[in-house]
Amino acid sequence: MKIVVAPDSFKGSLTASGAGEAMRQGILKASLHHEIVVIPMADGGEGSVRCLVDATGGQLFATTVENSTGKPIEATYGVLGDGATCVIELAAACGLYVIEKSERNPLFTSTYGFGQLITAGLERGYRRFVLCLGGSGTNDGGAGMLEALGAKLLDANGHLIQRGAIGLSDLHAIDTASMDPRIYACDIQIACDVTNPLVGSLGASYVFGPQKGADTAAVELLEVLMKKWADHLEQMSSIPVRSAAGAGAGGGTAAGILALLQGRIRAGSSLIAEISELERHVQGADLVLTGEGKVDSQTAHGKTPSGVAFIAKKHGVPTIIIAGTVGSNIENLYTQGVCSVLSLLNKPMSLDEALENAAAMLENTTEAAVRLFAAGSANKNH
Amino acid sequence: MKIVVAPDSFKGSLTASGAGEAMRQGILKASLHHEIVVIPMADGGEGSVRCLVDATGGQLFATTVENSTGKPIEATYGVLGDGATCVIELAAACGLYVIEKSERNPLFTSTYGFGQLITAGLERGYRRFVLCLGGSGTNDGGAGMLEALGAKLLDANGHLIQRGAIGLSDLHAIDTASMDPRIYACDIQIACDVTNPLVGSLGASYVFGPQKGADTAAVELLEVLMKKWADHLEQMSSIPVRSAAGAGAGGGTAAGILALLQGRIRAGSSLIAEISELERHVQGADLVLTGEGKVDSQTAHGKTPSGVAFIAKKHGVPTIIIAGTVGSNIENLYTQGVCSVLSLLNKPMSLDEALENAAAMLENTTEAAVRLFAAGSANKNH
Repeated sequence: MKIVVAPDSFKGSLTASGAGEAMRQGILKASLHHEIVVIPMADGGEGSVRCLVDATGGQLFATTVENSTGKPIEATYGVLGDGATCVIELAAACGLYVIEKSERNPLFTSTYGFGQLITAGLERGYRRFVLCLGGSGTNDGGAGMLEALGAKLLDANGHLIQRGAIGLSDLHAIDTASMDPRIYACDIQIACDVTNPLVGSLGASYVFGPQKGADTAAVELLEVLMKKWADHLEQMSSIPVRSAAGAGAGGGTAAGILALLQGRIRAGSSLIAEISELERHVQGADLVLTGEGKVDSQTAHGKTPSGVAFIAKKHGVPTIIIAGTVGSNIENLYTQGVCSVLSLLNKPMSLDEALENAAAMLENTTEAAVRLFAAGSANKNH
Repeated sequence: MKIVVAPDSFKGSLTASGAGEAMRQGILKASLHHEIVVIPMADGGEGSVRCLVDATGGQLFATTVENSTGKPIEATYGVLGDGATCVIELAAACGLYVIEKSERNPLFTSTYGFGQLITAGLERGYRRFVLCLGGSGTNDGGAGMLEALGAKLLDANGHLIQRGAIGLSDLHAIDTASMDPRIYACDIQIACDVTNPLVGSLGASYVFGPQKGADTAAVELLEVLMKKWADHLEQMSSIPVRSAAGAGAGGGTAAGILALLQGRIRAGSSLIAEISELERHVQGADLVLTGEGKVDSQTAHGKTPSGVAFIAKKHGVPTIIIAGTVGSNIENLYTQGVCSVLSLLNKPMSLDEALENAAAMLENTTEAAVRLFAAGSANKNH
């Protein structure tokens, strides 16, 4: 059989490449006769740059920028194997987990460092960008990013406003005259791992604010600020960033890119599958294996396993998902080409123990899954 | 597809019937079009009587006998649907878990109550017996059982020796003249879930003594006493009970039955599969599902999943095992007709949580397994 292995990372335990390697070993334990293609995946969340650089034989760079609180951080970005497409993660500079828990307050954190990373890509001469927006600790609508690229966010007195969402309360005008002109020559794709709009009950502030450290009052304030920010952006661009699916990604950073940088929103898993040429490899395969740390009722809404299954289904190839945690209400995945969802757990254990043993358990569960599928294939009655 | 469901119990959480029902629900969730036959299984361990009575439409009885420490206990035994075969578990009267932890000392516990249960069966007129020896807290070689059936175990002065293995240190002669004569008219099958001999490093005392409460010194003494007991039994019967496979079952109770009651040892899972007509149901099936609480490197040595797979393999039907805990080194199962081994766990959790949610998790894992097998069956490339 030809088996394509296309997992996302398993958060806290395995990179996508590590998961792919464990799955490869499991398949080999089931049989030495299978043809195996490993394509580590991502959905625009953390690990996307590493995954894409690995998949295409690209290169990683490191540079020092500001993190979301303004402190220096060495952040990594990369170029794809085509030597022309620069891939940058918002989380590399402005990730929720790169700052201390006590610093996590999306009223004050800024995407300025992310704009610095884009500038670094411009400096290297790149004019094609894939911007991955998952995992941020910010909710400034991409305001900081635009400042780093030369935009001037001004109050009623013509002074620069404070960094972070909180500064937007004083926003009076956005002056783009001093924007880095190179950015307008760029093709920018946004890899989104969520479909949330900028504002409203499903918007960035209400849905992701709390997990970034905002309390109830802060969430309400963020929502007001994002509405104001949206007013400015929509006025300048005539793009409906309030309601556009995915505009809320990266704490609204997608909205800023959409409105002022002419970026296009793509489902991260789909974009990354395209870059990795997943579809080409899936053709003629018997089986696709994917997985990530947790699968639940949200997985069907654009997460990697769902995106992988969608592509496999186009070619009539069934997809198995293996996850650390399998939640309930996952039936919607079965309509997307997923034939079965398995947990890699092999006995009762703590989360720490599971994270520590994830590679070996993923290997064994992959073996079991492939053996089971092969037994079905050998079923003489059908 | 036709799917046969033949699980053992999941210790601490599900009876074999309960497991079978959860698996049935899981198959129905995968598809309403499968033909399902549920045959709860056992291997001679605890739950065997219940399983056999359920499978054959038999009847359960309760009677008060002595437990292994001599205290009264209401114990259950049964008759199969044939109305003629009496099924008794050693553990019903003399189980390790029916006495307090502080009372667990196989130097002193006795199988007397088990002999009383056999007598109860004789009183009801039964002359066919299936004796299930798993789960005992005894190591007296079946001495107490023989006493209950009328044998006199005498010391050098012609006095009755003390109950329990410890009394055998004074054993001088076994007087069978006053044995219940009805026992000699009986057909007795021993359902063993282990293949250990009576003595030696793989014998009852060394292997099972510690888990029954014997410390190192007690184990050594038990071994000496079992050797002495074997001398007497072998002298009276010319059956090599020291080394016979399975003679160590039930703390050597199998040895006593073999030597003086003309019982025949059977692999419990095989005997119970025979009574349940598993083989007839497996014919023409596409898939067999079995399982028990834990699967490890010992499972291949006569545990239920192994026995079920053996029968299925005869008819070219693959077997899937689903267990709570899946240990390592289970490759030997693959040569026995097992195509895949899955754990029912769906996320990190404590043992208590796993036991509590076993039914729902078994249902979901069964669904995943059947979906996976069906996807393999639909694989067009083969």
